[in-house]
Amino acid sequence: MLDHLRQQVLEANLDLPKYRLVTFTWGNVSGIDREQGLVVIKPSGVPYEELKAEDLVVVDLEGRIVEGRLKPSSDTPTHLALYRAFPTIGGIVHTHSPWATSWAQAGRGIPALGTTHADYFYGEVPCTRLMTEAEIQGAYELETGNVIIETFRELDPAMVPSVLVNCHAPFSWGKDPHNAVHNAVVLEEVAKIAYRTYNLNPEIQPMDQTLLDRHFLRKHGANAYYGQK
Amino acid sequence: MLDHLRQQVLEANLDLPKYRLVTFTWGNVSGIDREQGLVVIKPSGVPYEELKAEDLVVVDLEGRIVEGRLKPSSDTPTHLALYRAFPTIGGIVHTHSPWATSWAQAGRGIPALGTTHADYFYGEVPCTRLMTEAEIQGAYELETGNVIIETFRELDPAMVPSVLVNCHAPFSWGKDPHNAVHNAVVLEEVAKIAYRTYNLNPEIQPMDQTLLDRHFLRKHGANAYYGQK
Amino acid sequence: MLDHLRQQVLEANLDLPKYRLVTFTWGNVSGIDREQGLVVIKPSGVPYEELKAEDLVVVDLEGRIVEGRLKPSSDTPTHLALYRAFPTIGGIVHTHSPWATSWAQAGRGIPALGTTHADYFYGEVPCTRLMTEAEIQGAYELETGNVIIETFRELDPAMVPSVLVNCHAPFSWGKDPHNAVHNAVVLEEVAKIAYRTYNLNPEIQPMDQTLLDRHFLRKHGANAYYGQK
Amino acid sequence: MLDHLRQQVLEANLDLPKYRLVTFTWGNVSGIDREQGLVVIKPSGVPYEELKAEDLVVVDLEGRIVEGRLKPSSDTPTHLALYRAFPTIGGIVHTHSPWATSWAQAGRGIPALGTTHADYFYGEVPCTRLMTEAEIQGAYELETGNVIIETFRELDPAMVPSVLVNCHAPFSWGKDPHNAVHNAVVLEEVAKIAYRTYNLNPEIQPMDQTLLDRHFLRKHGANAYYGQK
Repeated sequence: MLDHLRQQVLEANLDLPKYRLVTFTWGNVSGIDREQGLVVIKPSGVPYEELKAEDLVVVDLEGRIVEGRLKPSSDTPTHLALYRAFPTIGGIVHTHSPWATSWAQAGRGIPALGTTHADYFYGEVPCTRLMTEAEIQGAYELETGNVIIETFRELDPAMVPSVLVNCHAPFSWGKDPHNAVHNAVVLEEVAKIAYRTYNLNPEIQPMDQTLLDRHFLRKHGANAYYGQK
Repeated sequence: MLDHLRQQVLEANLDLPKYRLVTFTWGNVSGIDREQGLVVIKPSGVPYEELKAEDLVVVDLEGRIVEGRLKPSSDTPTHLALYRAFPTIGGIVHTHSPWATSWAQAGRGIPALGTTHADYFYGEVPCTRLMTEAEIQGAYELETGNVIIETFRELDPAMVPSVLVNCHAPFSWGKDPHNAVHNAVVLEEVAKIAYRTYNLNPEIQPMDQTLLDRHFLRKHGANAYYGQK
Repeated sequence: MLDHLRQQVLEANLDLPKYRLVTFTWGNVSGIDREQGLVVIKPSGVPYEELKAEDLVVVDLEGRIVEGRLKPSSDTPTHLALYRAFPTIGGIVHTHSPWATSWAQAGRGIPALGTTHADYFYGEVPCTRLMTEAEIQGAYELETGNVIIETFRELDPAMVPSVLVNCHAPFSWGKDPHNAVHNAVVLEEVAKIAYRTYNLNPEIQPMDQTLLDRHFLRKHGANAYYGQK
Repeated sequence: MLDHLRQQVLEANLDLPKYRLVTFTWGNVSGIDREQGLVVIKPSGVPYEELKAEDLVVVDLEGRIVEGRLKPSSDTPTHLALYRAFPTIGGIVHTHSPWATSWAQAGRGIPALGTTHADYFYGEVPCTRLMTEAEIQGAYELETGNVIIETFRELDPAMVPSVLVNCHAPFSWGKDPHNAVHNAVVLEEVAKIAYRTYNLNPEIQPMDQTLLDRHFLRKHGANAYYGQK
């Protein structure tokens, strides 16, 4: 069932240690089959080096297990909330990658400070508000998704494919699982460079909107001219 | 004698260079057999790449060598003091891992600033007080253990499995040698992220207690729901 | 056509991931045959691990494709502007290497703070002024070259073989593609050390001119005495 | 001639890239045969991966080439000055290792801030004064040695086996070439941890003298009890 998507999700999970985004099992990737409304996600707490395609768990958009012997990632309700709210995305990744997590812990979004950022994120990567006691004590992982969705009320998730969950860590997404991990790698690099930029110039302001437009649209949208397509 | 524990302690020591926690021989792991009251520990100054199971030293809880051709780690009295005072722990690791050591040298505990920390440490990783002249000139390594124990007078070592020894470096522990090293890796990652968090937001406060509870108890205790158990 | 130069440009491009100067495809190297007035450059968006000599694109100095099935790097007009303006250079490299990019995003040139810098750069590595709306919305990549050339109006590109493009990232060059990448590696190292130097001593001033002279001329020019020549 | 020393010096030079102390050819190691008064040193500008025992150059203490087809390191006069002034040392290493070089560029010595430092350096690793115009324009490399010797007028090089040359980079030494590189690795680690300690606590003071004594003497001198001897 969903063999192709399983393979994609497996490879995307294995890319997390390859790109040094995770320590131990601190990360998970999922992918969705929009036609069937089914999500393939990493099982909870399984080391990447032991992970096989058949270990992945298939759940529907309400979180019912459709196939799989193992428990899905404890973050599954967050993934599902995002798939329900953001119909254009096909893959989601959550990690505690250290640079992005530092910004999340500091409660700061990452402003667009240069073209590396602008090539992938159309403006600031936002940081969510702190969650309330009720949200934390309730359906915590679902509420984590809800606070992300609230943060994107006036943002297009296809234009800004990452978020920092306050006091926690980043989530990234993309058109498929591979692309989601790609964006997570970029986020980590952007978070690192922005950190150092502030150290060198604490007064730095977000970049010029025209330059942001130029770089983002050079790589994305109808008039993109980067790459071979 | 204690073949299984020897093998565990050997592997845990070899994990120190693997996880980049040590330079040269700057670290050691021990494990305890609580029934027999015997501790297996790394010999002093032996490079990890030459270390074999038969090089490990077996000592009793008073530090008498029970088996072994080599001298045990010069930190052995610290390990033994912790085993005597903390009956729930089964393995101990000492390293000079650079991020945690920076906090120790700064004389600062690492506050809980986010969920990465909360997943493993139920509150601040404390830093010990400075040792007195008498403690340093006396049974120094034993007194190092004593000052750690003093620091944990009102803390549960199972809830906070690491400490920073002021002006020195970290000790971590766990239910067995493998788990102790696991916690040492986490400590280093948490120390790194906390350092950068402070650089991004010098006014940051420790995280909300409810979120700390949620994350710690999600992974630990009777109602844990992370992983496959 | 240009087989030897193709091979040089291929190897120089493959050196970018080897020296950890790039994430994904964020960098490109070109080389010029001055006699024929032809430039060999990386195709746009092709991963280094798939890159072959026959994928490289040959363009003339006005940017017309002379040979090649693929689109050249989107930064080609920048490279060509530099080749036209700086007749002594034989290779150019553009990356988003993180340390140098942090300085570029901060809008700061890297002053000569020590002999590591002085061995390669005869004074500050300059940062360009911000580009105007018209430049960004016009022939952006060409104008990027123009603003670099403007920055070097009173500088010799052979004496300072790198520049930081404001809000963007570095360009480096050299007598051939290999040498250009060599300088890009040095720039990244120099940017890292300078960053940390400022953190340790925010009041530090550029180094003594006599020491700068000594080190630069020890390695470059008629009286160089470093190395085996 | 000096086959054993040649082999030691070769291996010590090859340890520089292994321990990530060098970029390109930015470092060199030498060793001395005190009985014959001969020094074996790396040739200038030769990449480590091509270096062979027969490439090493033998010079006497006045710098005359006794054996070797290649030019010795341009830093040879600095090495020789140190061998003449410090009769107890048997190996010297010079690198531009980035953490130590950052302190050198900042013109700051590295104070003893913790036991990692105290295990190897009996007090601050000093930074030399700035060199004069005359020293830089004269016999520069010899004068570099002289300013180091001046800095150690009241220090024992066996107790503090490293120095930071102001605006330049570190030199380390030891009882033989291997030990010199060992100390250079420690210096780099100590420089990194001290940098971060200051970031966490800008008001930190040098460590307690009693603790410094305890750790240094635990590893060095007649009553050392670290290791297997």
